[in-house]
Amino acid sequence: MKISVLGTGAVGRVYAAKLAELGHDVMIGTRDISKTLKSNQKDPQGNPPFSVWHTAHPAVRVGSLPEAAGFGDIVINALLAKSALSALEALRSDLDGKILVDITNAMDFSTGFPPTFFIVNTDSLGEQIQRALPDTKVVKTLNTVSALIQTDPYLVASGDHHVFLSGNDADAKTRVMEILRMYGWQHILDLGDITTSRGVEMYMALWARLYPVLNTPFNIKIQTGK
Amino acid sequence: MKISVLGTGAVGRVYAAKLAELGHDVMIGTRDISKTLKSNQKDPQGNPPFSVWHTAHPAVRVGSLPEAAGFGDIVINALLAKSALSALEALRSDLDGKILVDITNAMDFSTGFPPTFFIVNTDSLGEQIQRALPDTKVVKTLNTVSALIQTDPYLVASGDHHVFLSGNDADAKTRVMEILRMYGWQHILDLGDITTSRGVEMYMALWARLYPVLNTPFNIKIQTGK
Repeated sequence: MKISVLGTGAVGRVYAAKLAELGHDVMIGTRDISKTLKSNQKDPQGNPPFSVWHTAHPAVRVGSLPEAAGFGDIVINALLAKSALSALEALRSDLDGKILVDITNAMDFSTGFPPTFFIVNTDSLGEQIQRALPDTKVVKTLNTVSALIQTDPYLVASGDHHVFLSGNDADAKTRVMEILRMYGWQHILDLGDITTSRGVEMYMALWARLYPVLNTPFNIKIQTGK
Repeated sequence: MKISVLGTGAVGRVYAAKLAELGHDVMIGTRDISKTLKSNQKDPQGNPPFSVWHTAHPAVRVGSLPEAAGFGDIVINALLAKSALSALEALRSDLDGKILVDITNAMDFSTGFPPTFFIVNTDSLGEQIQRALPDTKVVKTLNTVSALIQTDPYLVASGDHHVFLSGNDADAKTRVMEILRMYGWQHILDLGDITTSRGVEMYMALWARLYPVLNTPFNIKIQTGK
Protein backbone atom coordinates (compact mmCIF):
# COMPACT_ATOMS: atom_id res chain seq x y z
CA MET A 1 0.00 0.00 0.00
CA LYS A 2 1.16 3.58 -0.65
CA ILE A 3 1.08 5.40 2.67
CA SER A 4 2.27 8.91 3.46
CA VAL A 5 3.22 10.41 6.76
CA LEU A 6 3.01 14.19 7.15
CA GLY A 7 5.60 15.44 9.62
CA THR A 8 9.22 14.49 10.30
CA GLY A 9 9.12 14.78 14.12
CA ALA A 10 9.47 11.85 16.49
CA VAL A 11 5.94 10.56 15.81
CA GLY A 12 6.20 10.85 12.03
CA ARG A 13 9.49 8.98 12.05
CA VAL A 14 8.12 6.13 14.18
CA TYR A 15 5.18 5.75 11.79
CA ALA A 16 7.25 5.91 8.61
CA ALA A 17 9.83 3.41 9.91
CA LYS A 18 7.19 0.94 11.06
CA LEU A 19 5.14 1.14 7.86
CA ALA A 20 8.25 0.66 5.71
CA GLU A 21 9.26 -2.31 7.88
CA LEU A 22 5.80 -3.78 7.25
CA GLY A 23 6.55 -3.64 3.51
CA HIS A 24 4.59 -0.55 2.48
CA ASP A 25 5.75 2.09 0.01
CA VAL A 26 6.14 5.06 2.35
CA MET A 27 6.73 8.76 1.77
CA ILE A 28 7.37 11.14 4.65
CA GLY A 29 6.38 14.76 4.00
CA THR A 30 8.14 17.88 5.25
CA ARG A 31 7.62 21.62 4.80
CA ASP A 32 11.13 22.17 3.38
CA ILE A 33 12.87 19.10 1.90
CA SER A 34 16.34 20.55 1.42
CA LYS A 35 16.39 22.14 4.86
CA THR A 36 15.17 18.90 6.48
CA LEU A 37 17.73 16.73 4.65
CA LYS A 38 20.68 19.13 5.08
CA SER A 39 20.22 20.00 8.74
CA ASN A 40 22.82 18.44 11.01
CA GLN A 41 21.22 19.82 14.15
CA LYS A 42 18.53 18.53 16.47
CA ASP A 43 15.04 19.72 15.55
CA PRO A 44 13.12 22.19 17.79
CA GLN A 45 11.66 19.23 19.74
CA GLY A 46 15.15 17.83 20.47
CA ASN A 47 15.03 14.95 17.98
CA PRO A 48 18.30 13.96 16.25
CA PRO A 49 18.85 15.43 12.74
CA PHE A 50 16.42 13.95 10.20
CA SER A 51 19.34 12.92 7.99
CA VAL A 52 20.66 10.61 10.73
CA TRP A 53 17.27 8.91 10.95
CA HIS A 54 16.89 8.74 7.17
CA THR A 55 20.28 7.02 6.77
CA ALA A 56 18.90 4.23 8.97
CA HIS A 57 15.63 4.11 6.98
CA PRO A 58 16.67 4.66 3.34
CA ALA A 59 13.54 2.97 1.93
CA VAL A 60 11.35 5.84 3.13
CA ARG A 61 10.82 8.43 0.39
CA VAL A 62 11.06 12.09 1.33
CA GLY A 63 8.78 14.65 -0.26
CA SER A 64 7.21 18.06 0.24
CA LEU A 65 3.90 18.16 2.09
CA PRO A 66 1.91 18.42 -1.18
CA GLU A 67 3.95 15.56 -2.73
CA ALA A 68 3.35 13.36 0.30
CA ALA A 69 -0.34 14.27 0.45
CA GLY A 70 -0.66 13.28 -3.23
CA PHE A 71 1.41 10.09 -2.91
CA GLY A 72 -0.39 7.96 -0.34
CA ASP A 73 -3.76 6.25 -0.61
CA ILE A 74 -3.76 6.75 3.13
CA VAL A 75 -2.16 9.84 4.63
CA ILE A 76 -1.23 10.04 8.29
CA ASN A 77 -1.29 13.44 9.97
CA ALA A 78 1.69 13.54 12.32
CA LEU A 79 2.13 17.30 12.12
CA LEU A 80 2.42 19.42 15.25
CA ALA A 81 -1.13 19.87 16.52
CA LYS A 82 -0.88 23.67 16.87
CA SER A 83 -0.14 24.19 13.17
CA ALA A 84 -1.76 21.05 11.71
CA LEU A 85 -5.05 22.67 10.74
CA SER A 86 -3.53 25.49 8.67
CA ALA A 87 -1.02 23.11 7.06
CA LEU A 88 -3.78 20.66 6.11
CA GLU A 89 -6.04 23.42 4.75
CA ALA A 90 -3.24 24.30 2.31
CA LEU A 91 -3.25 20.64 1.15
CA ARG A 92 -7.01 20.46 0.62
CA SER A 93 -6.91 19.66 -3.11
CA ASP A 94 -4.06 17.14 -2.67
CA LEU A 95 -6.08 15.33 0.00
CA ASP A 96 -9.38 15.21 -1.91
CA GLY A 97 -10.83 11.71 -1.78
CA LYS A 98 -8.03 10.40 0.43
CA ILE A 99 -8.19 8.83 3.86
CA LEU A 100 -6.50 11.08 6.42
CA VAL A 101 -5.58 9.42 9.70
CA ASP A 102 -5.48 12.06 12.42
CA ILE A 103 -3.45 11.04 15.46
CA THR A 104 -2.92 14.51 16.95
CA ASN A 105 -4.02 16.05 20.24
CA ALA A 106 -4.97 19.69 20.79
CA MET A 107 -2.69 19.93 23.80
CA ASP A 108 -0.77 23.04 24.76
CA PHE A 109 2.43 22.32 26.69
CA SER A 110 3.55 25.98 26.72
CA THR A 111 2.90 26.25 30.45
CA GLY A 112 4.48 22.84 31.13
CA PHE A 113 3.00 19.53 32.25
CA PRO A 114 0.12 18.73 32.55
CA PRO A 115 -1.00 20.43 29.33
CA THR A 116 -4.20 22.35 28.74
CA PHE A 117 -6.33 21.96 25.62
CA PHE A 118 -6.71 24.59 22.90
CA ILE A 119 -9.81 22.86 21.50
CA VAL A 120 -12.15 21.14 23.95
CA ASN A 121 -15.69 20.29 25.10
CA THR A 122 -17.94 21.45 22.23
CA ASP A 123 -15.46 20.82 19.41
CA SER A 124 -12.34 18.78 18.68
CA LEU A 125 -9.31 18.90 16.43
CA GLY A 126 -10.61 15.85 14.54
CA GLU A 127 -13.85 17.67 13.73
CA GLN A 128 -12.06 20.89 12.76
CA ILE A 129 -9.85 18.98 10.34
CA GLN A 130 -12.88 17.19 8.83
CA ARG A 131 -14.69 20.53 8.39
CA ALA A 132 -11.61 22.05 6.77
CA LEU A 133 -11.30 19.06 4.38
CA PRO A 134 -14.89 18.16 3.47
CA ASP A 135 -13.83 15.87 0.60
CA THR A 136 -11.29 13.95 2.68
CA LYS A 137 -12.24 10.99 4.86
CA VAL A 138 -10.83 11.87 8.26
CA VAL A 139 -10.37 9.01 10.73
CA LYS A 140 -9.29 9.90 14.25
CA THR A 141 -7.40 7.16 16.03
CA LEU A 142 -4.32 6.25 18.10
CA ASN A 143 -4.11 9.67 19.80
CA THR A 144 -4.81 8.01 23.17
CA VAL A 145 -1.43 6.27 23.45
CA SER A 146 2.19 7.37 23.09
CA ALA A 147 3.84 7.00 19.67
CA LEU A 148 5.76 3.83 20.45
CA ILE A 149 2.64 2.04 21.69
CA GLN A 150 0.65 3.30 18.69
CA THR A 151 2.77 1.29 16.30
CA ASP A 152 3.64 -1.53 18.74
CA PRO A 153 0.75 -2.28 21.11
CA TYR A 154 2.58 -5.40 22.38
CA LEU A 155 4.74 -3.02 24.43
CA VAL A 156 1.88 -3.05 27.00
CA ALA A 157 0.19 -6.16 28.47
CA SER A 158 0.76 -8.29 25.35
CA GLY A 159 -1.56 -5.93 23.48
CA ASP A 160 -4.53 -6.54 25.77
CA HIS A 161 -5.88 -2.96 25.73
CA HIS A 162 -8.00 -0.74 23.49
CA VAL A 163 -7.68 1.75 20.67
CA PHE A 164 -10.58 3.79 19.29
CA LEU A 165 -11.81 4.94 15.88
CA SER A 166 -13.86 8.04 15.03
CA GLY A 167 -14.96 9.03 11.55
CA ASN A 168 -17.88 9.65 9.22
CA ASP A 169 -16.91 7.11 6.52
CA ALA A 170 -17.35 3.41 7.33
CA ASP A 171 -15.08 2.18 4.50
CA ALA A 172 -12.31 4.53 5.55
CA LYS A 173 -12.55 3.21 9.11
CA THR A 174 -12.33 -0.37 7.79
CA ARG A 175 -9.14 0.49 5.87
CA VAL A 176 -7.60 2.18 8.90
CA MET A 177 -8.58 -0.80 11.04
CA GLU A 178 -6.44 -2.96 8.71
CA ILE A 179 -3.42 -0.76 9.44
CA LEU A 180 -4.13 -0.96 13.17
CA ARG A 181 -4.26 -4.76 12.93
CA MET A 182 -0.95 -4.77 11.05
CA TYR A 183 0.53 -2.82 13.92
CA GLY A 184 -0.74 -5.57 16.21
CA TRP A 185 -3.89 -4.01 17.69
CA GLN A 186 -6.30 -6.68 18.94
CA HIS A 187 -9.02 -4.50 20.54
CA ILE A 188 -10.33 -1.78 18.21
CA LEU A 189 -13.52 0.05 19.16
CA ASP A 190 -15.44 2.15 16.61
CA LEU A 191 -16.98 5.02 18.60
CA GLY A 192 -18.99 6.46 15.72
CA ASP A 193 -18.78 9.65 13.69
CA ILE A 194 -16.05 12.29 13.84
CA THR A 195 -17.75 14.14 16.73
CA THR A 196 -16.63 11.25 18.95
CA SER A 197 -13.13 12.70 18.58
CA ARG A 198 -14.14 14.88 21.52
CA GLY A 199 -14.18 11.80 23.72
CA VAL A 200 -10.75 10.49 22.79
CA GLU A 201 -9.19 13.96 22.77
CA MET A 202 -10.56 14.87 26.22
CA TYR A 203 -9.50 11.50 27.63
CA MET A 204 -5.98 12.85 27.27
CA ALA A 205 -6.62 15.01 30.35
CA LEU A 206 -6.73 11.76 32.33
CA TRP A 207 -3.78 10.34 30.36
CA ALA A 208 -1.75 13.40 31.36
CA ARG A 209 -2.49 12.67 35.05
CA LEU A 210 -1.78 8.94 34.73
CA TYR A 211 1.51 9.50 32.90
CA PRO A 212 3.55 10.93 35.83
CA VAL A 213 1.95 8.57 38.39
CA LEU A 214 2.52 5.35 36.43
CA ASN A 215 5.87 6.35 34.91
CA THR A 216 5.80 3.34 32.56
CA PRO A 217 4.13 2.61 29.21
CA PHE A 218 0.37 2.18 29.75
CA ASN A 219 -3.02 2.13 28.10
CA ILE A 220 -6.62 1.49 29.10
CA LYS A 221 -8.61 -1.67 28.52
CA ILE A 222 -12.41 -1.46 28.45
CA GLN A 223 -13.84 -4.04 30.82
CA THR A 224 -17.43 -5.25 30.41
CA GLY A 225 -19.44 -8.24 31.56
CA LYS A 226 -19.67 -9.85 34.96
CA MET B 1 -18.56 4.79 61.10
CA LYS B 2 -20.94 7.76 60.86
CA ILE B 3 -21.36 8.57 57.20
CA SER B 4 -23.67 11.11 55.58
CA VAL B 5 -24.93 11.26 52.05
CA LEU B 6 -26.05 14.64 50.69
CA GLY B 7 -28.78 14.21 48.10
CA THR B 8 -31.80 11.91 47.87
CA GLY B 9 -31.63 11.25 44.12
CA ALA B 10 -30.81 7.87 42.60
CA VAL B 11 -27.09 8.13 43.40
CA GLY B 12 -27.61 9.26 47.00
CA ARG B 13 -30.04 6.41 47.62
CA VAL B 14 -27.64 3.78 46.23
CA TYR B 15 -24.88 5.09 48.51
CA ALA B 16 -27.01 5.32 51.63
CA ALA B 17 -28.48 1.83 51.14
CA LYS B 18 -25.08 0.25 50.53
CA LEU B 19 -23.38 1.97 53.47
CA ALA B 20 -26.23 0.99 55.83
CA GLU B 21 -26.01 -2.58 54.52
CA LEU B 22 -22.29 -2.54 55.36
CA GLY B 23 -23.22 -1.71 58.95
CA HIS B 24 -22.53 2.03 59.08
CA ASP B 25 -24.65 4.63 60.83
CA VAL B 26 -25.96 6.55 57.83
CA MET B 27 -27.86 9.82 57.46
CA ILE B 28 -29.17 11.01 54.09
CA GLY B 29 -29.55 14.77 53.73
CA THR B 30 -32.25 16.64 51.82
CA ARG B 31 -33.11 20.30 51.29
CA ASP B 32 -36.65 19.91 52.67
CA ILE B 33 -37.27 16.92 54.97
CA SER B 34 -41.06 17.10 55.22
CA LYS B 35 -41.49 17.63 51.48
CA THR B 36 -39.12 14.74 50.71
CA LEU B 37 -40.84 12.37 53.15
CA LYS B 38 -44.41 13.36 52.24
CA SER B 39 -44.13 13.34 48.48
CA ASN B 40 -45.88 10.43 46.79
CA GLN B 41 -44.73 11.44 43.33
CA LYS B 42 -41.64 10.63 41.30
CA ASP B 43 -38.85 13.18 41.73
CA PRO B 44 -37.83 15.50 38.84
CA GLN B 45 -35.29 12.85 37.64
CA GLY B 46 -38.00 10.18 37.46
CA ASN B 47 -37.01 8.26 40.61
CA PRO B 48 -39.80 6.68 42.69
CA PRO B 49 -41.02 8.68 45.73
CA PHE B 50 -38.35 8.88 48.45
CA SER B 51 -40.81 7.48 51.00
CA VAL B 52 -41.08 4.25 49.01
CA TRP B 53 -37.31 3.86 49.06
CA HIS B 54 -37.09 4.82 52.74
CA THR B 55 -39.65 2.19 53.74
CA ALA B 56 -37.28 -0.40 52.27
CA HIS B 57 -34.29 1.16 54.06
CA PRO B 58 -35.60 2.24 57.47
CA ALA B 59 -32.16 2.16 59.13
CA VAL B 60 -31.09 5.22 57.13
CA ARG B 61 -31.65 8.44 59.10
CA VAL B 62 -33.11 11.39 57.22
CA GLY B 63 -31.96 14.93 58.00
CA SER B 64 -31.70 18.41 56.58
CA LEU B 65 -28.55 19.20 54.59
CA PRO B 66 -26.93 20.98 57.60
CA GLU B 67 -27.90 18.09 59.91
CA ALA B 68 -26.43 15.53 57.54
CA ALA B 69 -23.28 17.63 56.99
CA GLY B 70 -22.81 17.78 60.76
CA PHE B 71 -23.60 14.10 61.38
CA GLY B 72 -21.03 12.18 59.37
CA ASP B 73 -17.31 11.90 59.91
CA ILE B 74 -17.29 11.38 56.19
CA VAL B 75 -19.82 13.21 54.00
CA ILE B 76 -20.58 12.12 50.46
CA ASN B 77 -21.63 14.77 47.95
CA ALA B 78 -24.34 13.20 45.79
CA LEU B 79 -26.10 16.49 45.05
CA LEU B 80 -26.97 17.48 41.50
CA ALA B 81 -23.74 18.82 39.98
CA LYS B 82 -25.30 22.07 38.69
CA SER B 83 -26.36 23.23 42.15
CA ALA B 84 -23.82 21.35 44.29
CA LEU B 85 -21.35 24.22 44.66
CA SER B 86 -23.87 26.75 46.00
CA ALA B 87 -25.47 24.14 48.30
CA LEU B 88 -22.07 23.16 49.71
CA GLU B 89 -20.99 26.78 50.19
CA ALA B 90 -24.03 27.20 52.47
CA LEU B 91 -22.78 24.20 54.53
CA ARG B 92 -19.24 25.51 54.91
CA SER B 93 -19.24 25.73 58.72
CA ASP B 94 -20.98 22.32 59.08
CA LEU B 95 -18.33 20.72 56.88
CA ASP B 96 -15.30 22.29 58.59
CA GLY B 97 -12.69 19.61 59.30
CA LYS B 98 -14.73 16.87 57.63
CA ILE B 99 -13.87 14.63 54.73
CA LEU B 100 -16.10 15.39 51.75
CA VAL B 101 -16.22 12.74 49.05
CA ASP B 102 -17.11 14.38 45.75
CA ILE B 103 -18.49 11.97 43.16
CA THR B 104 -20.14 14.53 40.86
CA ASN B 105 -19.51 15.45 37.24
CA ALA B 106 -19.88 18.94 35.73
CA MET B 107 -21.95 17.57 32.86
CA ASP B 108 -24.79 19.44 31.23
CA PHE B 109 -27.45 17.19 29.68
CA SER B 110 -29.78 20.08 28.79
CA THR B 111 -29.08 19.59 25.06
CA GLY B 112 -29.34 15.81 25.37
CA PHE B 113 -26.75 13.06 25.10
CA PRO B 114 -23.74 13.27 24.87
CA PRO B 115 -23.45 16.02 27.49
CA THR B 116 -21.15 19.02 27.40
CA PHE B 117 -19.18 20.23 30.41
CA PHE B 118 -19.89 23.43 32.34
CA ILE B 119 -16.45 23.32 33.99
CA VAL B 120 -13.53 21.98 31.97
CA ASN B 121 -9.89 22.16 30.91
CA THR B 122 -8.31 24.72 33.28
CA ASP B 123 -10.55 24.00 36.28
CA SER B 124 -12.79 21.26 37.65
CA LEU B 125 -15.77 20.86 39.94
CA GLY B 126 -13.56 19.07 42.48
CA GLU B 127 -11.22 22.05 42.63
CA GLN B 128 -14.07 24.56 42.83
CA ILE B 129 -15.58 22.69 45.78
CA GLN B 130 -12.18 22.53 47.54
CA ARG B 131 -11.70 26.28 47.02
CA ALA B 132 -15.21 26.98 48.35
CA LEU B 133 -14.55 24.81 51.43
CA PRO B 134 -10.91 25.51 52.38
CA ASP B 135 -11.23 23.80 55.79
CA THR B 136 -12.83 20.63 54.38
CA LYS B 137 -10.78 17.75 53.01
CA VAL B 138 -12.26 17.17 49.57
CA VAL B 139 -11.56 13.80 47.93
CA LYS B 140 -12.71 13.32 44.36
CA THR B 141 -13.42 9.73 43.43
CA LEU B 142 -15.88 7.31 41.81
CA ASN B 143 -17.20 9.87 39.30
CA THR B 144 -15.81 7.76 36.44
CA VAL B 145 -18.35 4.92 36.76
CA SER B 146 -22.12 4.74 37.01
CA ALA B 147 -23.70 4.70 40.50
CA LEU B 148 -24.35 0.96 40.64
CA ILE B 149 -20.73 0.13 39.76
CA GLN B 150 -19.45 2.74 42.25
CA THR B 151 -20.84 0.78 45.17
CA ASP B 152 -20.54 -2.68 43.58
CA PRO B 153 -17.48 -2.94 41.33
CA TYR B 154 -18.01 -6.72 40.98
CA LEU B 155 -20.79 -5.87 38.50
CA VAL B 156 -18.00 -5.54 35.91
CA ALA B 157 -15.25 -8.11 35.18
CA SER B 158 -15.17 -9.44 38.77
CA GLY B 159 -13.92 -6.01 39.86
CA ASP B 160 -10.82 -6.10 37.66
CA HIS B 161 -10.82 -2.38 36.73
CA HIS B 162 -9.72 0.93 38.23
CA VAL B 163 -11.04 3.77 40.33
CA PHE B 164 -9.11 7.00 40.99
CA LEU B 165 -8.53 9.33 43.94
CA SER B 166 -7.75 13.07 43.85
CA GLY B 167 -7.24 15.23 46.92
CA ASN B 168 -4.83 17.41 48.88
CA ASP B 169 -4.97 15.49 52.17
CA ALA B 170 -3.21 12.11 52.33
CA ASP B 171 -5.02 10.92 55.49
CA ALA B 172 -8.40 11.78 53.99
CA LYS B 173 -7.54 9.77 50.89
CA THR B 174 -6.54 6.82 53.09
CA ARG B 175 -9.92 6.96 54.87
CA VAL B 176 -11.81 7.15 51.60
CA MET B 177 -9.74 4.28 50.24
CA GLU B 178 -11.09 2.17 53.13
CA ILE B 179 -14.65 2.88 52.02
CA LEU B 180 -13.74 2.00 48.43
CA ARG B 181 -12.27 -1.31 49.63
CA MET B 182 -15.47 -2.01 51.61
CA TYR B 183 -17.41 -1.49 48.39
CA GLY B 184 -15.13 -4.11 46.82
CA TRP B 185 -12.68 -1.97 44.85
CA GLN B 186 -9.43 -3.84 44.20
CA HIS B 187 -7.60 -1.34 42.00
CA ILE B 188 -7.45 2.18 43.47
CA LEU B 189 -5.06 4.69 41.94
CA ASP B 190 -4.13 7.92 43.78
CA LEU B 191 -3.60 10.51 41.05
CA GLY B 192 -2.36 13.29 43.36
CA ASP B 193 -3.79 16.59 44.51
CA ILE B 194 -7.26 17.96 43.82
CA THR B 195 -6.18 19.48 40.48
CA THR B 196 -6.10 15.93 39.12
CA SER B 197 -9.91 16.08 39.28
CA ARG B 198 -9.60 17.65 35.83
CA GLY B 199 -8.36 14.33 34.49
CA VAL B 200 -11.15 12.18 35.89
CA GLU B 201 -13.84 14.75 35.10
CA MET B 202 -12.71 15.18 31.47
CA TYR B 203 -12.45 11.41 31.01
CA MET B 204 -16.24 11.47 31.18
CA ALA B 205 -16.26 12.85 27.63
CA LEU B 206 -14.91 9.46 26.55
CA TRP B 207 -17.26 7.66 28.96
CA ALA B 208 -20.20 9.43 27.30
CA ARG B 209 -19.08 8.09 23.90
CA LEU B 210 -18.44 4.56 25.18
CA TYR B 211 -21.80 4.38 26.96
CA PRO B 212 -24.08 4.17 23.87
CA VAL B 213 -21.61 1.98 21.94
CA LEU B 214 -21.11 -0.62 24.67
CA ASN B 215 -24.68 -0.52 26.04
CA THR B 216 -23.64 -2.59 29.08
CA PRO B 217 -21.98 -1.79 32.43
CA PHE B 218 -18.29 -1.00 31.84
CA ASN B 219 -15.18 0.57 33.27
CA ILE B 220 -11.54 1.01 32.31
CA LYS B 221 -8.59 -0.98 33.57
CA ILE B 222 -5.14 0.57 33.41
CA GLN B 223 -2.77 -1.86 31.72
CA THR B 224 0.99 -1.59 32.27
CA GLY B 225 3.99 -3.85 31.81
CA LYS B 226 4.95 -6.08 28.90
